[in-house]
Amino acid sequence: MARKSYAGMDLEGKEQDPLYRRRHSLAHIMAAAVQRLYPGTRLGFGPPVETGFYYDFDLPQQLVPEDLPKIEKEMRRIISERVAFEPRELPGPEGLEMLSAAGEKLKAEYASELTADGGTLSFYKSGAFEDMCAGPHVEHSGQIPPDCFKLDTIAGAYWRGDEKREMLTRVYGLAFNSKDGLNEFVKMREEARQFDHRKLGKDLELYMISDQVGPGLPLWLPNGTVLREELEAFAKETEFDAGYVRVATPHITDGQLFMTSGHLPYYKDGMFPPMVIDEGRSYYLKPMNCPMHHLIFGARPRSYRELPLRLAEYAQDYRYEPSGTLAGLLRVRGMCMNDAHIYCTPEQLDDEFRAVLEMHRYYYEKFRISKFWMRLSVHDPANKEKFLDAPEAWKSSEDTIRSILDKMGIEYSEGFGEAAFYGPKVDFQIRNVVGREETASTNQLDFGVPRRFNLTYVGADGQEHTPYCIHRAPLGTHERFLAFLMEHFKGAFPTWMAPTQVRIIPVHMERFGDYARQLAKTLRGARFRAEVDEGSDSFNKKIRTAATEKIPNVLVVGEREQENQEVTWRRYCVKEQRSLPFKQFHGLLEALRRARTMDNYPDETLPEV
Amino acid sequence: MARKSYAGMDLEGKEQDPLYRRRHSLAHIMAAAVQRLYPGTRLGFGPPVETGFYYDFDLPQQLVPEDLPKIEKEMRRIISERVAFEPRELPGPEGLEMLSAAGEKLKAEYASELTADGGTLSFYKSGAFEDMCAGPHVEHSGQIPPDCFKLDTIAGAYWRGDEKREMLTRVYGLAFNSKDGLNEFVKMREEARQFDHRKLGKDLELYMISDQVGPGLPLWLPNGTVLREELEAFAKETEFDAGYVRVATPHITDGQLFMTSGHLPYYKDGMFPPMVIDEGRSYYLKPMNCPMHHLIFGARPRSYRELPLRLAEYAQDYRYEPSGTLAGLLRVRGMCMNDAHIYCTPEQLDDEFRAVLEMHRYYYEKFRISKFWMRLSVHDPANKEKFLDAPEAWKSSEDTIRSILDKMGIEYSEGFGEAAFYGPKVDFQIRNVVGREETASTNQLDFGVPRRFNLTYVGADGQEHTPYCIHRAPLGTHERFLAFLMEHFKGAFPTWMAPTQVRIIPVHMERFGDYARQLAKTLRGARFRAEVDEGSDSFNKKIRTAATEKIPNVLVVGEREQENQEVTWRRYCVKEQRSLPFKQFHGLLEALRRARTMDNYPDETLPEV
Repeated sequence: MARKSYAGMDLEGKEQDPLYRRRHSLAHIMAAAVQRLYPGTRLGFGPPVETGFYYDFDLPQQLVPEDLPKIEKEMRRIISERVAFEPRELPGPEGLEMLSAAGEKLKAEYASELTADGGTLSFYKSGAFEDMCAGPHVEHSGQIPPDCFKLDTIAGAYWRGDEKREMLTRVYGLAFNSKDGLNEFVKMREEARQFDHRKLGKDLELYMISDQVGPGLPLWLPNGTVLREELEAFAKETEFDAGYVRVATPHITDGQLFMTSGHLPYYKDGMFPPMVIDEGRSYYLKPMNCPMHHLIFGARPRSYRELPLRLAEYAQDYRYEPSGTLAGLLRVRGMCMNDAHIYCTPEQLDDEFRAVLEMHRYYYEKFRISKFWMRLSVHDPANKEKFLDAPEAWKSSEDTIRSILDKMGIEYSEGFGEAAFYGPKVDFQIRNVVGREETASTNQLDFGVPRRFNLTYVGADGQEHTPYCIHRAPLGTHERFLAFLMEHFKGAFPTWMAPTQVRIIPVHMERFGDYARQLAKTLRGARFRAEVDEGSDSFNKKIRTAATEKIPNVLVVGEREQENQEVTWRRYCVKEQRSLPFKQFHGLLEALRRARTMDNYPDETLPEV
Repeated sequence: MARKSYAGMDLEGKEQDPLYRRRHSLAHIMAAAVQRLYPGTRLGFGPPVETGFYYDFDLPQQLVPEDLPKIEKEMRRIISERVAFEPRELPGPEGLEMLSAAGEKLKAEYASELTADGGTLSFYKSGAFEDMCAGPHVEHSGQIPPDCFKLDTIAGAYWRGDEKREMLTRVYGLAFNSKDGLNEFVKMREEARQFDHRKLGKDLELYMISDQVGPGLPLWLPNGTVLREELEAFAKETEFDAGYVRVATPHITDGQLFMTSGHLPYYKDGMFPPMVIDEGRSYYLKPMNCPMHHLIFGARPRSYRELPLRLAEYAQDYRYEPSGTLAGLLRVRGMCMNDAHIYCTPEQLDDEFRAVLEMHRYYYEKFRISKFWMRLSVHDPANKEKFLDAPEAWKSSEDTIRSILDKMGIEYSEGFGEAAFYGPKVDFQIRNVVGREETASTNQLDFGVPRRFNLTYVGADGQEHTPYCIHRAPLGTHERFLAFLMEHFKGAFPTWMAPTQVRIIPVHMERFGDYARQLAKTLRGARFRAEVDEGSDSFNKKIRTAATEKIPNVLVVGEREQENQEVTWRRYCVKEQRSLPFKQFHGLLEALRRARTMDNYPDETLPEV
């Protein structure tokens, strides 16, 4: 995942963006306000960041969240004063002298480093406040709408990130183009918190992480396992239709396999340590599946008639990550990948790669992931050390991908010199409704590794040739993709995926419980995940519980329903409820499952029955 | 697996069996014949074994298989002589003297050990031949039908199994009650060889074992993966119908989990060595799944209303076995288990355990495994060290199982004092048509481990109780059960399981190829594994290939079929072929898949369509 840090210095090149200037100026205005309110406050750094700005202060007193409105008020006063932002350059010693005189010893420390080899120092003055700063800024504070920002949080931060130095107080502010922009972000962030997959994972009992097993090793609970299995079934059917065949390979292997593939020793840091048995053989947990699939391709001579051979596997891999970096399902040590390797002739490459991209698009449209784009990593022809010396293969494979992307109209950027050793790499980036950006899938066009494994096929010409290999995983890993979907769907899954598809709630248990059970039995007989709420709660409480659990279909049954063999159907995603014959509901349910309808969206058209 | 060794001394207690005597006497007769034909031959041991007999000889010349008929002929001559088997006892020194005088130095060596503390030696004399031997034997050689035996193989064997001692020539003979019994065994053994899963696994491309990955770690090829997935789908549906829910757990865990469960350090020898990361935490490949399922049960408070909670998982486990003991799929290091754990109240135990046994029976009947029986391992109340001190729990659980077995009429034996520490254990033994006996499943009624994990539920009385736990795996592991089925079905799988379900062979490729492809497309659209044989072989060769690959359904299409939208349907298991409308065939195929019909048996009734 390539999330940008909130506190990052990663805005390089954005200085000319008006919002960058505004955020930067707000940092100064906040510092001026804090120094007005808390005399004796000394300054650290105060940059703009992706969602606003922050400033690090050495304060004479502790700051609490209740202090923020007071600071905001003071900032708005400064804004209303329409103070000008005026740059000036001072010779090094003079600037340094000014900082020291003002007691700004942290700034002075930095300034002395900057001018160690001579040179001048830039300052920006706004009213009585002046800060060492390279700009740029707004012209005057009146250009900043007073309602486009708010102060957000207070945190501790070491001076220059060094835990041996002073602990400063960092105040974060949010700032956007307008009040609406600010509100939109706040709302999206609130949703992102509320629908964080870690929260949903716990609330909906999807997975757990146990310290007895270890960090980064999720145990999927029954509800989460349904999601996995439904997603797998969908992928397997899609892959069957696209001509894939499936394999199943072990999770450990003698290390020599990863020597052949070239992963050892280079990738060793990302692997678990070896288990040594059999008088000195080292067995490793596999961090990826390609070498096993290559062995299967190479298990016997292959003819061009068998190509393309598409070997697919939902395969569990293990990668070592430091325990401190692990988080929820997004950064794990064990992951189950929607993996496949396509072995093909050069003539088949175009069609195969296009089909892979089309499959990505098919999935994203299915899951209503409308925001997706690609990063194409190409090689640097001048760098003979980093990239395989095969100019023709590079040219043809990169051209192939570019031309497919252009024809398909997929948005993409190129990373020059960022390809893998063996061939160009393409990352699919997706973004969900709560703003989470994710690398859904890394695909690779590989013309190097098949040679390392001596993979060949006999062509129509009777000669041996080396196949191309496409590595692809459109649905990434269960861990990442399902974490993404949990948030994307805000925990409300379509009927076909939902852990509980139908919950039946009788308005009166003793009178209509049997009818409810009979319906559940019929639905379970057709292998729907249906159940009667047999609990002792009140009817209303049961209805609320079903909503909390985001059950897509609730059937209410009472006198009228029982008499007419009907049900009253309440969908999670729409307000209206509807009475209909049970048989008709059952038929609808079959159709929803068969078509994998995304009925968790109110605007989705339901199948006709 | 509890296979008995061919060369074993495991016939103890069978001495009174007439067949034992016959085989024993045949060993003497063979020794007499060999000494007649090869003067100077000295004797080692010559016992009866499960399928006949052998004798170890120190020969003056090398023996080749072509010599066996000559020996057999000589044996039949001895039989026709109706020589009596006469025992006699000699004082130790006298017997020893006799052996030494005859030059039988190996026998003499053994005799001197036997009489080191004094005592006599037994001999049996038959004609001119006399051998040190405790008997018993037939009365005279005429009691042995001359066609009930044959000499089988020649092998090398060290004297007394000690590789530092003399290498002797072992001649094996087969012997049964009659000529028919002999022929039946020979035929079954031939089938067992021909249908050995290792041979089928290679011929039908089901799995491979690669030294680059390591022994005991099968890679399932596309055809074998179909078998796994079809079996899993069957199990999952069966388990859904029986009220199970599914979970998915990691393959590695911090070792502390196996300390809690009690597997470490006791089971350590059967586990892979630990991987140490995170500053000293030891992670192990899991050899079993119970502790993970226990964690899931214990993840939050449970109410009696949730019980029985049946947690199922097709879970991959890894166990360390010395590399020399690994063989095919039967003795592996990585195995995927049809596992589940049922947590229930004492009141539910009877129903739950019965349902588990019924599920076993359902599967066996489905797969036409008619030979199955059970071993019930119960505790020894006197042994307080080996067994948990919980007399009531032992009594009720053992009584429960016995009473269920009696009611169900399942054949079983009891092993006194062979239970697990935590509860009685029940093994299901099955035997396939080529004679392979297999422990299909080990089930356990566990009243000990839930306590170790502090698993509780709140009962109707508001109090906390410890649940019972049933460990069950009716389909064992994929590795063993599929190896068993490969042999049981002699490689010919029913349509629902078959890797290729339908192969279409046009009588003329150019003229009827398009029609064939159109049929294949229709079937694949309905997700059948259907294909056209597009190869360049002749029509007849293609038909033969399909038979070699044991494809259950071959469709032949030519002029008439194309004109009438028909197919000519050849089933692998029956001789007759049949023409019918393609639509009707398609409907039949749907019905076969839906009902999981065992249409690999000619006597199976096909569904009506």
